[in-house]
Amino acid sequence: MDKKPLASNRRRFLKQGAVLAASAGAARGAGAENLAGQPWERVYGAGFTGYGQPSRFEQPVQRHIGRPYGDLAPGSGSALSPIEKLEGIITPSSLHNDRSHSGTPDIDPKQHQLLLHGLVARPLKFSVDALLAYPMTSRIHFLECSGNSNRNLAPQPSQVPAGALHGNIACSEWTGIPLAVLLEEAGLLPQAKWILAEGADSAHMSRSVPIEKALDDAMIALYQNGERLRPEQGYPVRLLLPGWEGNMNVKWLRRIKATEEPTYTKDETSKYTDLQPDGRAMQFTFEMGVKSVITKPSSTMTLPRPGLYEISGIAWSGAGRVRRVEVSADGGATWADAALYGEERPKALVRFRLPWQWTGKEAVLQSRATDEKGRVQPSRAAWLAKYSPANSYHNHSIVSWAVGADGSVKNVYA
Amino acid sequence: MDKKPLASNRRRFLKQGAVLAASAGAARGAGAENLAGQPWERVYGAGFTGYGQPSRFEQPVQRHIGRPYGDLAPGSGSALSPIEKLEGIITPSSLHNDRSHSGTPDIDPKQHQLLLHGLVARPLKFSVDALLAYPMTSRIHFLECSGNSNRNLAPQPSQVPAGALHGNIACSEWTGIPLAVLLEEAGLLPQAKWILAEGADSAHMSRSVPIEKALDDAMIALYQNGERLRPEQGYPVRLLLPGWEGNMNVKWLRRIKATEEPTYTKDETSKYTDLQPDGRAMQFTFEMGVKSVITKPSSTMTLPRPGLYEISGIAWSGAGRVRRVEVSADGGATWADAALYGEERPKALVRFRLPWQWTGKEAVLQSRATDEKGRVQPSRAAWLAKYSPANSYHNHSIVSWAVGADGSVKNVYA
Repeated sequence: MDKKPLASNRRRFLKQGAVLAASAGAARGAGAENLAGQPWERVYGAGFTGYGQPSRFEQPVQRHIGRPYGDLAPGSGSALSPIEKLEGIITPSSLHNDRSHSGTPDIDPKQHQLLLHGLVARPLKFSVDALLAYPMTSRIHFLECSGNSNRNLAPQPSQVPAGALHGNIACSEWTGIPLAVLLEEAGLLPQAKWILAEGADSAHMSRSVPIEKALDDAMIALYQNGERLRPEQGYPVRLLLPGWEGNMNVKWLRRIKATEEPTYTKDETSKYTDLQPDGRAMQFTFEMGVKSVITKPSSTMTLPRPGLYEISGIAWSGAGRVRRVEVSADGGATWADAALYGEERPKALVRFRLPWQWTGKEAVLQSRATDEKGRVQPSRAAWLAKYSPANSYHNHSIVSWAVGADGSVKNVYA
Repeated sequence: MDKKPLASNRRRFLKQGAVLAASAGAARGAGAENLAGQPWERVYGAGFTGYGQPSRFEQPVQRHIGRPYGDLAPGSGSALSPIEKLEGIITPSSLHNDRSHSGTPDIDPKQHQLLLHGLVARPLKFSVDALLAYPMTSRIHFLECSGNSNRNLAPQPSQVPAGALHGNIACSEWTGIPLAVLLEEAGLLPQAKWILAEGADSAHMSRSVPIEKALDDAMIALYQNGERLRPEQGYPVRLLLPGWEGNMNVKWLRRIKATEEPTYTKDETSKYTDLQPDGRAMQFTFEMGVKSVITKPSSTMTLPRPGLYEISGIAWSGAGRVRRVEVSADGGATWADAALYGEERPKALVRFRLPWQWTGKEAVLQSRATDEKGRVQPSRAAWLAKYSPANSYHNHSIVSWAVGADGSVKNVYA
């Protein structure tokens, strides 16, 4: 493996950093006496708030909203996380991706109930207060819509920010009740091999889930990043199926029914199946593939001048932990290992970072993730060959950003 | 160690859980046909938002605001995190504790600068954009005001929620530049033994920091929980000194000066010193002690009926990792180990949980944390004996909640 195109010498980065600082308004030799007081240093600041908000200067940081049916169905579509503006691995709940089929219901938690029935000895109905009294567990997990990155299946690559292409992904700390605890309490019968999970939205979004997953790491989630779930993420209660298709993590959960067979709901027959080259549709493709995206630099950004930059991005796998992320600056000819943050957690985002010397010539940046099961993120060509051109789910192929000689960064199919 | 008062039998908890569920509106034997459609299931939901907010039913979840000078100085005081309503270990940025000396300045990031000067070979001034181009690092750390829990030093225990007493603590994922990187770039001189860190608020809040800490895990933080810092937490740039007094993590950072001696600023002489029994003041007591608080149940809550409950709370230590949290239901006579979540991270919140059988009799709940250096959270009496009654900092003593026979939970000094 040739690491030449990628600089890993921090000292060189630092020297370049000084140049960046200087050109961005440095004052070498400046002392305290040169500090001009800014206007805000001369007035008493704002008072306290009960629930804080971002700076007014950060107002442009918003989710990318896609409404394929326009005003006809304003809550049907997706609001994608602006991953190109975020750092670390925790997505603030306000910017968490939101895929909704019939808008966000305004649920009164005092009226909402969760029914657990079907192949159980004791059907149970829980109020939200009853659920809140249960023992809790907390874990950090990503949630990705299985349609994420399908915009990159269009014939021509869109020149939009990374989040508008690949931002149907987010990562939160979730707290709730292991589903296995509630199923045990209801007395799950041995003939139960699946559950049906149904939402309280007007679409009654519903999916069938194998019982092995329900008894493994499935969670009845009540909290997200410390506070109660947000309405767009299923307030007051959602199903969490770590690593599996986002839509299966049923929001506004009102019913779980233990069944012998899959229910074959509209949401798992009319969509969320993967069209094969021979025209058949693969059903129940639950697990999200190993994947990564460089978020900085990324499409629509501009590198101001040649020099050292930090390449930074996110990686994840529905199968478990990310073991490795490699980065290429020459369209995949050579690769170098990036440093990882958060790689100890399964089914959670990982942040990868690597210094890169941009000489001012054209370059194609790519990242390639490998998970603990040895699965490697495929090239776009290899992924496309597996599916019909009409398939729009589970695109976890390598993403390519072309850096022009002018510093512009563009979305390309490489 | 006698574990009798604390039930650890999950099956018993589950049975009780079923009773809770039943009493909270269960419908044993209910089937899908009994599901009454709620109003929100019959109307199309709300459309997408660029930046989400909590449910309108969660509006009461707000920070506890304390303004000791009232309208005279509305931004001087603290807004405490409502820890009694939160779960897990990540505090949402909107509910992060906020200790401010002269309000929150409205800083334009295009105008703000950070000066690095004093005993350095090359003084440097950085724009925020220049800082954003540096290599980043991410870590999860708590931030606690050294005055946290000083309300529990009053002669009589206040009957207010846990957050209003002990909520000057929060925990976030922080992303920024290691301070050591910038100091290296400026060419730190060997005679530099301290730095001065100064904020751009109108109080010019400033503290002296030993150079060992500045070169260890100190960070120039730019992001909090994925997004840019919130104004109340120092937007656009703050100093982060993991595990040390909150006020030293200077917000709205405008200047770092390398010095031979401490600067003895107003903020480290007129306050933030610890008064001893003999009248002398201990200065530069940086590290926050090992501590824990039961958040559920806690003061002002009521247990509806005897039965099994989950005791849940947060623990932390400025010295590193939390190794153990013990819980007592009899005022410290006997203790049992709680389960920990997040204990692999140093200087971060840990969530502890333990099932507890409440028989309906009076009980006093306490938690006691031990860190990886073997330091044990002291009793209130032992802590008080170390300081003058006028001291108001670093109260990390054991917190006691009394459960009455009527299920009421009260703040007590035990």
